[in-house]
Amino acid sequence: MPKIMYIDPVGPKGACPKLKNDLDRIKQKNTEVEFTCLKKGPEHLEYRYYEALILPELLDTIRDLETKEYDAAIIGCFYDPGLYEAREILNRMVVTAPAEASLHIAATLGRKFSILVGRLKWVPQMMENIMKYGLKDKLASFKSLEMGALDFHMDENITLSKMKEKALEAIELDGAEVIILGCTMNFGFYEKLQDQLKVPVIDPAIAALKYAELLVEIRDKLGWYTSKKYAFETPPDLR
Amino acid sequence: MPKIMYIDPVGPKGACPKLKNDLDRIKQKNTEVEFTCLKKGPEHLEYRYYEALILPELLDTIRDLETKEYDAAIIGCFYDPGLYEAREILNRMVVTAPAEASLHIAATLGRKFSILVGRLKWVPQMMENIMKYGLKDKLASFKSLEMGALDFHMDENITLSKMKEKALEAIELDGAEVIILGCTMNFGFYEKLQDQLKVPVIDPAIAALKYAELLVEIRDKLGWYTSKKYAFETPPDLR
Amino acid sequence: MPKIMYIDPVGPKGACPKLKNDLDRIKQKNTEVEFTCLKKGPEHLEYRYYEALILPELLDTIRDLETKEYDAAIIGCFYDPGLYEAREILNRMVVTAPAEASLHIAATLGRKFSILVGRLKWVPQMMENIMKYGLKDKLASFKSLEMGALDFHMDENITLSKMKEKALEAIELDGAEVIILGCTMNFGFYEKLQDQLKVPVIDPAIAALKYAELLVEIRDKLGWYTSKKYAFETPPDLR
Amino acid sequence: MPKIMYIDPVGPKGACPKLKNDLDRIKQKNTEVEFTCLKKGPEHLEYRYYEALILPELLDTIRDLETKEYDAAIIGCFYDPGLYEAREILNRMVVTAPAEASLHIAATLGRKFSILVGRLKWVPQMMENIMKYGLKDKLASFKSLEMGALDFHMDENITLSKMKEKALEAIELDGAEVIILGCTMNFGFYEKLQDQLKVPVIDPAIAALKYAELLVEIRDKLGWYTSKKYAFETPPDLR
Amino acid sequence: MPKIMYIDPVGPKGACPKLKNDLDRIKQKNTEVEFTCLKKGPEHLEYRYYEALILPELLDTIRDLETKEYDAAIIGCFYDPGLYEAREILNRMVVTAPAEASLHIAATLGRKFSILVGRLKWVPQMMENIMKYGLKDKLASFKSLEMGALDFHMDENITLSKMKEKALEAIELDGAEVIILGCTMNFGFYEKLQDQLKVPVIDPAIAALKYAELLVEIRDKLGWYTSKKYAFETPPDLR
Amino acid sequence: MPKIMYIDPVGPKGACPKLKNDLDRIKQKNTEVEFTCLKKGPEHLEYRYYEALILPELLDTIRDLETKEYDAAIIGCFYDPGLYEAREILNRMVVTAPAEASLHIAATLGRKFSILVGRLKWVPQMMENIMKYGLKDKLASFKSLEMGALDFHMDENITLSKMKEKALEAIELDGAEVIILGCTMNFGFYEKLQDQLKVPVIDPAIAALKYAELLVEIRDKLGWYTSKKYAFETPPDLR
Repeated sequence: MPKIMYIDPVGPKGACPKLKNDLDRIKQKNTEVEFTCLKKGPEHLEYRYYEALILPELLDTIRDLETKEYDAAIIGCFYDPGLYEAREILNRMVVTAPAEASLHIAATLGRKFSILVGRLKWVPQMMENIMKYGLKDKLASFKSLEMGALDFHMDENITLSKMKEKALEAIELDGAEVIILGCTMNFGFYEKLQDQLKVPVIDPAIAALKYAELLVEIRDKLGWYTSKKYAFETPPDLR
Repeated sequence: MPKIMYIDPVGPKGACPKLKNDLDRIKQKNTEVEFTCLKKGPEHLEYRYYEALILPELLDTIRDLETKEYDAAIIGCFYDPGLYEAREILNRMVVTAPAEASLHIAATLGRKFSILVGRLKWVPQMMENIMKYGLKDKLASFKSLEMGALDFHMDENITLSKMKEKALEAIELDGAEVIILGCTMNFGFYEKLQDQLKVPVIDPAIAALKYAELLVEIRDKLGWYTSKKYAFETPPDLR
Repeated sequence: MPKIMYIDPVGPKGACPKLKNDLDRIKQKNTEVEFTCLKKGPEHLEYRYYEALILPELLDTIRDLETKEYDAAIIGCFYDPGLYEAREILNRMVVTAPAEASLHIAATLGRKFSILVGRLKWVPQMMENIMKYGLKDKLASFKSLEMGALDFHMDENITLSKMKEKALEAIELDGAEVIILGCTMNFGFYEKLQDQLKVPVIDPAIAALKYAELLVEIRDKLGWYTSKKYAFETPPDLR
Repeated sequence: MPKIMYIDPVGPKGACPKLKNDLDRIKQKNTEVEFTCLKKGPEHLEYRYYEALILPELLDTIRDLETKEYDAAIIGCFYDPGLYEAREILNRMVVTAPAEASLHIAATLGRKFSILVGRLKWVPQMMENIMKYGLKDKLASFKSLEMGALDFHMDENITLSKMKEKALEAIELDGAEVIILGCTMNFGFYEKLQDQLKVPVIDPAIAALKYAELLVEIRDKLGWYTSKKYAFETPPDLR
Repeated sequence: MPKIMYIDPVGPKGACPKLKNDLDRIKQKNTEVEFTCLKKGPEHLEYRYYEALILPELLDTIRDLETKEYDAAIIGCFYDPGLYEAREILNRMVVTAPAEASLHIAATLGRKFSILVGRLKWVPQMMENIMKYGLKDKLASFKSLEMGALDFHMDENITLSKMKEKALEAIELDGAEVIILGCTMNFGFYEKLQDQLKVPVIDPAIAALKYAELLVEIRDKLGWYTSKKYAFETPPDLR
Repeated sequence: MPKIMYIDPVGPKGACPKLKNDLDRIKQKNTEVEFTCLKKGPEHLEYRYYEALILPELLDTIRDLETKEYDAAIIGCFYDPGLYEAREILNRMVVTAPAEASLHIAATLGRKFSILVGRLKWVPQMMENIMKYGLKDKLASFKSLEMGALDFHMDENITLSKMKEKALEAIELDGAEVIILGCTMNFGFYEKLQDQLKVPVIDPAIAALKYAELLVEIRDKLGWYTSKKYAFETPPDLR
């Protein structure tokens, strides 16, 4: 019975516990999903600086979860902050994050995907991740909704209609075959959008949970776990 | 209860039904795995020509499985023959193949992977696939065992020792952090090799099954299924 | 006196024997061009599945031509179906195809080319070929006419005017210096278009014939023929 | 009179104040160089986790320097930790780091450079930076000395001789024309190595200082300063 | 006291000595800047042929400057004609050019830059240089003003307003964070444009001077000078 | 009857008129091949500087040939000096060069090629050309014979044996399927080498002639000639 913690890597004011409802609805029967956020921290992570600030507490939280025998942690932000750092310090627990999981799933469902972002400010850092994950050739485009991370649920109809407009541009003009929602705060939209667009629309928090379940399973059944050679070698004092 | 067919895309003489044992051992509890091969065809697919010959029967078989309400088919060859063709003609059934599944899993477990191939002849076509899947930047190297697809189980100790030698070269000289076995006929080796190398060693047939289970699950729970826009648009007469 | 067979890789209903007129008009004096199509097969190859279906008969036809001492075969479809498979099984006869030939010629005539396709559905597979041929950096863009392969000659004035419109976009907005017509069914248009656009417009069937004549000549005079090392190694039973 | 702070982003135990001697020796006449380290932190940053731990204090230190009207800060580690984060939060002060500065200088002095690293563990993260800076095509190779960051000055003759051996391999076998020392703890070696190899050998701490002086100068004379559009947009509360 | 010659690589009729005013205004205190042009040559270098014609005199001029103990020469054209040839024949003198210097500086100030060119004709050759310098991944776009090299100062208000329009397109649509003026004849515009756009605008002649000062300084203080291995090996008779 | 001039772009002392014998032996029946060299110039072009020196006379020669109604000129050096400049100024005459022609032919005969160079010094500039021609992905490796351009015929047995050794390395270790001789002074070797290696060995001067014949033919029959848009736009005074 895999125990998975979804970490909303922001302070209590920005955290969004109702996101857990979506995860509970789509988890595997035996999976147990919990939700947590940080003790302190900004309300969102739209800036690199904000991410830098939360990294130590985030990584402590993750180490602590390994001690408590959790099977996996999900870092709930589409910038995947601390994902590689966490893989470095962990020795048994799985860790996933929305962008990595969404990109791999999308790459299997179509030849090209586009990513809806809140603001163009997000693009450079997300592009760095896509290059890091080696999937640049699958990217059709980024499309900006021109909304901040905290704005998506102010008027959901407006958000949905903007998402649809930008997704259609991505499909018609950029050749996208799959749409990825580029923020975990986009929860609650993928189904409606998918119905209207007739192409897969990836909700990144859900993708991260599905990938976490897969990684836990292949760890347990096959011994396939983060390689400890080179990139994710654990510091000596944490082995 | 997902019903998944593993297709060994060769004629009865080359088919290897005992590979099913490995799959049964690692499948999810509810999954049902069956095994089939083609009615006629060569004993192996080391040449593009051989693959061309089996494509029509392979695709007929796959269409037939969709009619019979299978949830997924696995095309059991590391060249992934017919994978994109199959995605084009299917409207509900999932189809996976060893290379695509192995590459995505390996890309998550480490930064660079190497692929052990039987002969250097295999490299150009596999490289085409890696470029098609958009994962070229994650490839550390190909390493050739200089054995044909039918030779791996003649003397398993020799095979294992060659695999170890080439995998170590890949790790030490090319920076590989994960090893992918580049042929479904490499079944039975990953565990021993993994124990000795201390890095993940991906068995491609198993990877394909795990990916099939994931894709069936996200299809059923989330409606995430092969995009029918552009690359995998179904011909009108098959819709 | 080189004997070259142009194979229209579709069934008799879709085949277009009058395309031979264009080839006869521009062939070298000593070249003899013949035309054939498949005994059965779809009317066009716009889907990967259709190509898979015709591959075995196509490759048999090609092997047969080698036996009959033809000097070259042209596979008359811009997807170049079976080109690499054919190179694998042949030991003396040359084989060319429209996309490969057009891309190399266009790459010499200008720095960037654009390809006019019938539908956006065609783009992913053509892009795979361009990457396989190593010429991705020379591509300015694909432009879609939004017409099927069988529609180009319904109203040739409409087709020509759409071609001109899209070619101009490619030149003015994407920096194209050469235009490639992305379907062998585009025969009969290149000259008029070229006159109007003042840039080279490549007819792919013609390009394939010119490349075939070149390859036959360098084979005969210089012994430069498909390398049989690695990618195009012939299966043992066909050597 | 530019005032520049060199930050050794480790705790007092790992910090190396005598590195300042080298910087004083090669600074511009008017430049004033100071040295500081963090109040707490690990002795070296060979692991991503260690970098994550020091980021908040490092960025606070940097913000504080801007308040105190320093002209530039140098982040003294070849992983360039926090460089982009710092650029985001700063509005006037320049910030440079060893890898970025060394790569740009080396790219001007030769066509290809190689980087000497302490251990292969360092390669993945440095490669991410090289891709981020857009200079991947200039990299000939990484060469590993198989020494930790704290080992270089244990026996300097051994270090020098290993550096020479690996640099020669890079030049003779990989085509390197410039050698970059891949750790700020490699101070004190570049001159001797350069004399022996007859190619430029870049000391990264020095390169960072020279780049800092350049960036301060073009800021003051030309108004050329970090673009605040997109990648380095400052969070609203820090503007 | 570095002595630097700015060479306007055109004949006297096309040369623009007042460009020196800008350089004098922004040079380091101790730097001495002189200006020269060629004895004969075309008025501009918009064509590859024109550049070929001036190369011998340009390189003779540069060799002569080395003999006269100049510290650096600047080749004043954004195509950087003869830059690598000059580096080959020089043994002590520094040589820089506008494109190389601008690209490196822009790459440090933002993640993506766009280049304003006079005509689309200029793009292919500039793209070759960007690939040669290894900075292709940092390019957002080229934007064409549709003006010749000699037109920029005919009506400076028109030029400025076109520059602004195209720069805004580059920023808003292509994600540019830094603008590079793609012709040395664009002198006099960067400041106004920068004030209006609020992103760095690089004047290429000035960038070349700043880079020349840097390269002279690191040559003198650190012995970091053009590598004479491979790419810039000097012909035996010129050593 | 195509009239083609082979230009040996060196002075009379370095020119090698007997190379014409090879060309006469393999030309098309109607082709007339002539040979010329420059009035003055160095004996070889191993340095960029030497190439710069000969460019004006080379381009004058080429313009003169167009006036005299030659059909094509071949620039007989594997650096392809002046090829793009010549295409710019010509309005009717074809111009080809050894590297461009060899790369396109080799790319058709196999998936990867290696180039034998005289010295490692040659690699950077040849690599620039390969990137310019867009064929980088087809390159397996450069292999250096460590001989100057004038040394190949001193002891032809030694040269042949070195070529064989390096070509075998390229095939066995780097995956090359085709070998390109990287200097026009390598004439006389391809046949013997080809017999021994059993893979195609491209003689670059011959490749350039074959490509010239092709380009003349498609110009005359199809109007396919160098695009005059953008890259090869002719200067106004030469139109």
